[in-house]
Amino acid sequence: MTKSIGILTAGGDSPGLNAAIRAIGKSAIRQHGWNVIGFKDGFRGLMQNRIIRLDSDMLSGILTKGGTILGTGRDKPHKMDVGGSVMDMTDVMVENAAHHELDALVCLGGGGTHKNAYRLANKGLPIVTVPKTIDNDLYGTDGSLGFDTALGIATEAVDRLHSTAHSHHRIIVVEIMGHNAGWLTLGAGLGGGADVILIPEVPYSIGTISNAIALRKSGGSTFSIVAVAEGAISQRLASVVQEIEERGGPRDEVKAALTERRSTVEIARQLEDRTGLEARVTILGHVQRGGAPSPADRILATKLGVAATAAIADGEMGVMVASDGEGTKRVPLSEVAGKKHLVPQDHPWLETARALGVCLGD
Amino acid sequence: MTKSIGILTAGGDSPGLNAAIRAIGKSAIRQHGWNVIGFKDGFRGLMQNRIIRLDSDMLSGILTKGGTILGTGRDKPHKMDVGGSVMDMTDVMVENAAHHELDALVCLGGGGTHKNAYRLANKGLPIVTVPKTIDNDLYGTDGSLGFDTALGIATEAVDRLHSTAHSHHRIIVVEIMGHNAGWLTLGAGLGGGADVILIPEVPYSIGTISNAIALRKSGGSTFSIVAVAEGAISQRLASVVQEIEERGGPRDEVKAALTERRSTVEIARQLEDRTGLEARVTILGHVQRGGAPSPADRILATKLGVAATAAIADGEMGVMVASDGEGTKRVPLSEVAGKKHLVPQDHPWLETARALGVCLGD
Amino acid sequence: MTKSIGILTAGGDSPGLNAAIRAIGKSAIRQHGWNVIGFKDGFRGLMQNRIIRLDSDMLSGILTKGGTILGTGRDKPHKMDVGGSVMDMTDVMVENAAHHELDALVCLGGGGTHKNAYRLANKGLPIVTVPKTIDNDLYGTDGSLGFDTALGIATEAVDRLHSTAHSHHRIIVVEIMGHNAGWLTLGAGLGGGADVILIPEVPYSIGTISNAIALRKSGGSTFSIVAVAEGAISQRLASVVQEIEERGGPRDEVKAALTERRSTVEIARQLEDRTGLEARVTILGHVQRGGAPSPADRILATKLGVAATAAIADGEMGVMVASDGEGTKRVPLSEVAGKKHLVPQDHPWLETARALGVCLGD
Amino acid sequence: MTKSIGILTAGGDSPGLNAAIRAIGKSAIRQHGWNVIGFKDGFRGLMQNRIIRLDSDMLSGILTKGGTILGTGRDKPHKMDVGGSVMDMTDVMVENAAHHELDALVCLGGGGTHKNAYRLANKGLPIVTVPKTIDNDLYGTDGSLGFDTALGIATEAVDRLHSTAHSHHRIIVVEIMGHNAGWLTLGAGLGGGADVILIPEVPYSIGTISNAIALRKSGGSTFSIVAVAEGAISQRLASVVQEIEERGGPRDEVKAALTERRSTVEIARQLEDRTGLEARVTILGHVQRGGAPSPADRILATKLGVAATAAIADGEMGVMVASDGEGTKRVPLSEVAGKKHLVPQDHPWLETARALGVCLGD
Repeated sequence: MTKSIGILTAGGDSPGLNAAIRAIGKSAIRQHGWNVIGFKDGFRGLMQNRIIRLDSDMLSGILTKGGTILGTGRDKPHKMDVGGSVMDMTDVMVENAAHHELDALVCLGGGGTHKNAYRLANKGLPIVTVPKTIDNDLYGTDGSLGFDTALGIATEAVDRLHSTAHSHHRIIVVEIMGHNAGWLTLGAGLGGGADVILIPEVPYSIGTISNAIALRKSGGSTFSIVAVAEGAISQRLASVVQEIEERGGPRDEVKAALTERRSTVEIARQLEDRTGLEARVTILGHVQRGGAPSPADRILATKLGVAATAAIADGEMGVMVASDGEGTKRVPLSEVAGKKHLVPQDHPWLETARALGVCLGD
Repeated sequence: MTKSIGILTAGGDSPGLNAAIRAIGKSAIRQHGWNVIGFKDGFRGLMQNRIIRLDSDMLSGILTKGGTILGTGRDKPHKMDVGGSVMDMTDVMVENAAHHELDALVCLGGGGTHKNAYRLANKGLPIVTVPKTIDNDLYGTDGSLGFDTALGIATEAVDRLHSTAHSHHRIIVVEIMGHNAGWLTLGAGLGGGADVILIPEVPYSIGTISNAIALRKSGGSTFSIVAVAEGAISQRLASVVQEIEERGGPRDEVKAALTERRSTVEIARQLEDRTGLEARVTILGHVQRGGAPSPADRILATKLGVAATAAIADGEMGVMVASDGEGTKRVPLSEVAGKKHLVPQDHPWLETARALGVCLGD
Repeated sequence: MTKSIGILTAGGDSPGLNAAIRAIGKSAIRQHGWNVIGFKDGFRGLMQNRIIRLDSDMLSGILTKGGTILGTGRDKPHKMDVGGSVMDMTDVMVENAAHHELDALVCLGGGGTHKNAYRLANKGLPIVTVPKTIDNDLYGTDGSLGFDTALGIATEAVDRLHSTAHSHHRIIVVEIMGHNAGWLTLGAGLGGGADVILIPEVPYSIGTISNAIALRKSGGSTFSIVAVAEGAISQRLASVVQEIEERGGPRDEVKAALTERRSTVEIARQLEDRTGLEARVTILGHVQRGGAPSPADRILATKLGVAATAAIADGEMGVMVASDGEGTKRVPLSEVAGKKHLVPQDHPWLETARALGVCLGD
Repeated sequence: MTKSIGILTAGGDSPGLNAAIRAIGKSAIRQHGWNVIGFKDGFRGLMQNRIIRLDSDMLSGILTKGGTILGTGRDKPHKMDVGGSVMDMTDVMVENAAHHELDALVCLGGGGTHKNAYRLANKGLPIVTVPKTIDNDLYGTDGSLGFDTALGIATEAVDRLHSTAHSHHRIIVVEIMGHNAGWLTLGAGLGGGADVILIPEVPYSIGTISNAIALRKSGGSTFSIVAVAEGAISQRLASVVQEIEERGGPRDEVKAALTERRSTVEIARQLEDRTGLEARVTILGHVQRGGAPSPADRILATKLGVAATAAIADGEMGVMVASDGEGTKRVPLSEVAGKKHLVPQDHPWLETARALGVCLGD
């Protein structure tokens, strides 16, 4: 009997989603002869049965396209907003997948999506996931769709700021995405030659930073590029958070504490005050999520897409198809859900930055 | 006798400055056999006699380089900060140029630089200027160094935002440079397909914008890209400013009024409130000033650089070498200094935007 | 009564065609309320009545897309290959346009298309054309769709070759498109800093080129970038062609003579022999025709597309909507058809190249 | 006592060399306090004692620069061309390094360089190498400087060709570098969505390719992109070579046989003949070696550069510092020299291509 599979994309969008959809769809159709449908707007489309048929025509010409042709959303299956009230719709989703006689559902997403997929898998939905996040914070895979592309965009921005900072004798502070992980900022800072790199994993002291800039100034370098992760955190605030976590305080208390996090604009202002140099701010924002995926992301997406249908063909469900060097591997969702891959304190990139004399704020 | 010329770059930096320095230097050396020196950091270097000799080696490999190898600064010759006090140093500068036996000084800069150059020219300094500004607001030339490059960067950002906005059903507000001129925002908005374009020359009403977005939403388009010039101004504030100007109020009063200008972040927040859609903000900042000049800017820089030495060879001083279609022309500084080239209400780009149904906020 | 208009794209494809189709379609629908159809694959689609309806959905998301969603072709209406025999199908095309009750047909194309359009206009078809060619050789307009984008691609290639030539002490010869016009090669050579630029309008002598390279070598520069237009021609061959043309020889004789044109590979080999340096060849080919249009091309396409519907609304037919500085103008097809815009011997770009010491081979 | 180290770059140039030189130099100076010199033009500079002092100033601003500030060359230490005769100069090189009291020499290069470095190491020169090749064919490392950048350039070219092929109904054949390894072509073909991918490791039959194109044509796809590695080889020729190798024929006989390899232009012509579609050729050539390194290559270069000085600090010589996932490792030169890393027949990229229905010519 001909198999049928469904695809959905959830969470923030990342370059490479369409390349993965294409690879899943093309290998399903050409290699395996299956039917393929897509659900619109993430788990909401699965709940509402909003589908589009993914045939060869639909899959053509999307390899290089940014965004996702399926749309995406941040809904959680067990806490859906339905007409204003919050409801657990996991059973409805399992039922809908059965209604379409799906042999498998491929979910492309990041940390949240993997938690949601695991929940649905536990309800019996045959699920395979594909890792996707520009934050690179997924556990169990050595690459996620979108990170290489976002890294390219952020690095190019740091490059551009270099030439203008150099001409002008000033501090330029650039805010880079990544949630609570520093990968994107550390990579773009290292690749773009930033003088200061602030990431959530290494809490900073404003004094350390302004001293480093002052030292550069006294050495004749009157400009500095400061790459700040959106999740960067001061040492003081980090110790507050740590204290809450150590005494087992609720997650909401941590969140409340984090609202005191300095904005990038504030960091810039404080550095102006302390160094006497003018500071300017760039906030890249969603520019980092858009546009054509990089070649590396397209190859990754294609490799993982084909690996997803291979897992389905083998009947291996409840797994994430992960990148493993040049190849792929299958990692049980139970091992992935809820875990985070943050920058370890002894990571080679961190050590490389320190060896070059980059200020990490600590 | 061998001629000597000097070069300085002043004001904000723009891609293409080095390409112009190279063309001035190479044509001076190869075609005319002159000596060439550069003054560091704009007019300050001229005041302080900080020079570098520009020989063939120094001029090699800089065609594609962003920034300016000479450095730049925002000093005004007649209001220099010298050890804390503000002094008129124009005579010192004229003397320094004479000291180096300069037959001409080429100043590359924007609106402010042209005012400063005109002042020095009136003191007898033989000056030729080259127009440079990413804002495109210089009078008397159909192109200025850096505009095409900045347009490319801003347009690419709008492109990227498109794919991510599309996937997510939201408003994305992107702030684009340009001071009080709307060229960069209008160009990037038109070229990038923005749905709303707000420029200083067309004061906006938040109601008009949110209506346009609501109309798009009701038509099925749940995302909108709003391109906002850093100088964009509401209709209310525009009328306050106009009232001041009509009664001949001082420029400081206008400036004071303009401090009430809405920030891009505020515009985003108000659109969220009125449309019920999430909004996200991108502030490109100095990214727009950096990096390699576009081919068009390099050709422009090279053409104008050669035209500058041609003017000097002809003994025609006190002029700006301007772009005039594929060729160049010489415009007296008296006609340029203090004038601004803003977007006229009937400009073809504006009419084109209206014909496509773009909301201009009015 | 609601107007209907048709659109077709003919000749080689150029970046910006889709941006123009979008602007024609959107302004026709939103501003004027017309119906819009597209003919597939150029004049062949008009002959065969192969149409697609261009509604708002079809026009969405194509602004940045390379190629043409309508397809294109090199057919000539008066010499169509129909089932193996060559036939004049102009009347059939006029009839088909009438059958669709078209008030106007917009043809986007280059030199050949303008001749074809003029023929159809003379048969009574209400036609407006939009200039498009990466060769920039259209008469009557100061810009054509695709030139700025192709210039960017070719210049970037010259940039890349620079760094590798520099490391290796060798000659790199890069072939650039442009048919019999030198605009693209001259622009990319000037913008990319090529050491030798060979264009059809300035016939070359191999001896002059190898001397220039030898001179660079003796001055310590052991690398040279040679930008060669695909239509570049030696002085000897140019005089043969001139002799034929002066005695009124047939065009076929010129073509026969031109088959002796040196290929880029041969030029490279001869330079190797004469200079003792290794030479390498790059042939960019159709890479120059593909990909997303540059911002300048998108603005041009959008401006011209809106100008085309404005001309139709005004009932002004038989015209090309041309770029005229920042605005547009309407030029009668009778003035455009059959004319070429080549690089004049005294063009500012040529003079700029000479002033910088670039070898033009003459 | 202060250590001194030398750096040289040899073989073909690759983007990322300067980024690595910067990282080696900066970590040597800032972290270890060593002196750093560079030898010009590869091993020739070592033989001739042509050095430049690499201080902080020299190392500034080169992170994003293509090529190599040291120059490179293809000389072999044991077979140097000295005044016309071929001489073994290894002892001279060892002596020169001793003369400069070098504690270590860092050689950046590809396959040939690793053989040469191993020879010098065996003569007692303390050597550490950094892997660099756009061909990705080095054994013992999971990444080499330049590959990611070249992959980006080649993929972008395939992207561009896509849009133009689509508009025109034709075959476009693009030749991609890689010597006898298929990595670059396979990666760019996969990432760019080529329809046919020909690599040296999978010998092709013209019949298989033309059948695949004909099948596409009959399915309505009248265009095809054929990505051809410069080392692609027909099945017939591959069996000739295999026969020579099996009977232990000399390497020169293999080389002689390989001169019959079809050029890309011939492949295009044969496909035209067999399919009746027009074909066009693009030869990217050295464009693939030039320009700014990609962010991934810059991070790799920086990581490896710091790893090289770390190995020297540990006194571990005669090793290549290799990329190993996110970290690095040290591989003895004895394990690397003379080995090649070709595409295995069961490589995930090959299997991915087959799963998508890409024709590999076999």
